[in-house]
Amino acid sequence: MDLIKNRRTIRKYKQEDVAATLLNELLEEAFRASTMGNMQLYSVVITREPEMKAKLAPTHFNQPMVKGAPVVLTFCADFNRFSKWCRCRKAEPGYDNFISFLNATSDALLVTQNFCTLAEAHGLGICYLGTTIYNPDKIIDILQLPELVMPVATITVGYPDECPAQPERLPLEGILHEEFYHDYTPEDIDRIYAEKEAMPENQHFVSINNKETLAQVFTDLRYKKADNEYMSGTLKETLKRQGFSE
Amino acid sequence: MDLIKNRRTIRKYKQEDVAATLLNELLEEAFRASTMGNMQLYSVVITREPEMKAKLAPTHFNQPMVKGAPVVLTFCADFNRFSKWCRCRKAEPGYDNFISFLNATSDALLVTQNFCTLAEAHGLGICYLGTTIYNPDKIIDILQLPELVMPVATITVGYPDECPAQPERLPLEGILHEEFYHDYTPEDIDRIYAEKEAMPENQHFVSINNKETLAQVFTDLRYKKADNEYMSGTLKETLKRQGFSE
Repeated sequence: MDLIKNRRTIRKYKQEDVAATLLNELLEEAFRASTMGNMQLYSVVITREPEMKAKLAPTHFNQPMVKGAPVVLTFCADFNRFSKWCRCRKAEPGYDNFISFLNATSDALLVTQNFCTLAEAHGLGICYLGTTIYNPDKIIDILQLPELVMPVATITVGYPDECPAQPERLPLEGILHEEFYHDYTPEDIDRIYAEKEAMPENQHFVSINNKETLAQVFTDLRYKKADNEYMSGTLKETLKRQGFSE
Repeated sequence: MDLIKNRRTIRKYKQEDVAATLLNELLEEAFRASTMGNMQLYSVVITREPEMKAKLAPTHFNQPMVKGAPVVLTFCADFNRFSKWCRCRKAEPGYDNFISFLNATSDALLVTQNFCTLAEAHGLGICYLGTTIYNPDKIIDILQLPELVMPVATITVGYPDECPAQPERLPLEGILHEEFYHDYTPEDIDRIYAEKEAMPENQHFVSINNKETLAQVFTDLRYKKADNEYMSGTLKETLKRQGFSE
C-alpha cells in the first residue's frame, strides 16, 4: 500500500471528466466500510453542474477546487432514510438525538476516507474540504437536505494536474501512547515539533505573517478562537434545525 | 482495490501477536490521511496488556473481541497536544469548543479508516467498535485521557481466525443523490429495503425476536430511543468535562 504512503492532496485538476460508471463503482466499494449495525447512516450528494458548484463555492470560502474539480461530493450523516424506513414498517425511530448524529457522522467519515483511498488507487486526486461543518446551514439549503441529514465532509475529485510536495507529519512518538495517555511535558513538545518548526517553508510562513512563532500563525490567523466560537454556535443551531438536538 | 471490495469485519483472531514494528509502520502510513491544516488532531492509545483489555471490555459491553484480539486501538480526537504546543510558543489556543471537537473527530476517523485499510492489506483483520462513544467517560478514566482528548473509535486488530460472509449493503440508488437530495417516498423505501428484508437471515432475526418487521428489531431492541437519549446525555456531559463545551 505504497499508494497511501505516497499520497498527496490534489487541488488542481485536468479538464478531463470523471466517468459516472467509475464514480459509482468507487462509491459502491467505499460503502464496504464498517457501518453501525449495518444501518449505512450516510448519503452522498454528487455535484457536477457548474451552477451548483458556483452556489457551493462560497460555503467553502471560495476555495478554487470547488469550481475547478469535475466532481464535488458532499458526504452526509443521514438518519432520515433509516427513520423513514422505520415509519413505513410500524416502528418508531428514536434517532433525533446527539449520539445518533455522531454515530451517523462516524459512518459517513469512514466511507469518505474509504472513497478517497479507492479514488487515488484509480489515478484520481482528491482534496478534503474541512469547511463543510463551518457553513452547514448554507450547504443544507443548497443541497436541500431534509431533517436528520447533516453534511460532514466534502471531497473534490478529478484527474491530477499537479504533483505537490508531501507535507511533513509529526514523529510517531508524538501520536502514539502505550497502554495509557502519557501527557506531554514542555520538553516532549519541543522534541515533537522541532522538525516542523525548523522547516524553511514554515519559518517563511512565520516571517511573512509578522509572527514570532508558527503556533501564533494558527491561533492568530488560521484557526482563531472567535471564529471557532462563532462556528460552534452555527453548528449547534444547525444540529437543532436538522432535528439532532435531543 | 479488490481488497476493499471483498473485506469483512473479523471478530475472531488467531493467538498470533501483531509485531510492534508492523503496527507502527501501518499507523505511520495511516497518518498520511488528510488532516485539518496539518494539525494532526488525533492520538492513538495502543492496548496490549491483558489487564488493560479486561478494564476496557465492559465499556464495550463485553464484546469478546476486546479481550480476544492481540491489539486494541483507541483513536482519540486530540486538541491537547496542539494546545500545549501553542502555550509553549506564546500563542493562546482557542480550541475548547464544539467545532474543534468535530474537527478533531474528523481527523481521527479518517486516520482510523486509513489504518483499517492498511491493516487488511497486510493480512490483518479488524473490527470497528461503535461502542466507544457510548461510554466515553469510563474509557477516559481507564486510558487517562486529559482535557481536550476524546475517544471516538476503537479497533480490535489481529490475524483472522474466521472468514464470515459479507453482509448485504443497500443498492447504490438508496445512497446517492444527483445534484440535490431527493427525499425518499414510501415506494422508494420499499424498493431500497426490499432485498435486505427478503434475506432469510434477516427474516430469521425478526421471527426469533417475535417482531413484526426488521425495523422493529432495530427500534425496539438494538438501538432504542431511551438508550440513545441516555447516551446523548453522557456524551454531552463528557464533552463538557473534556473542555469542548464552548
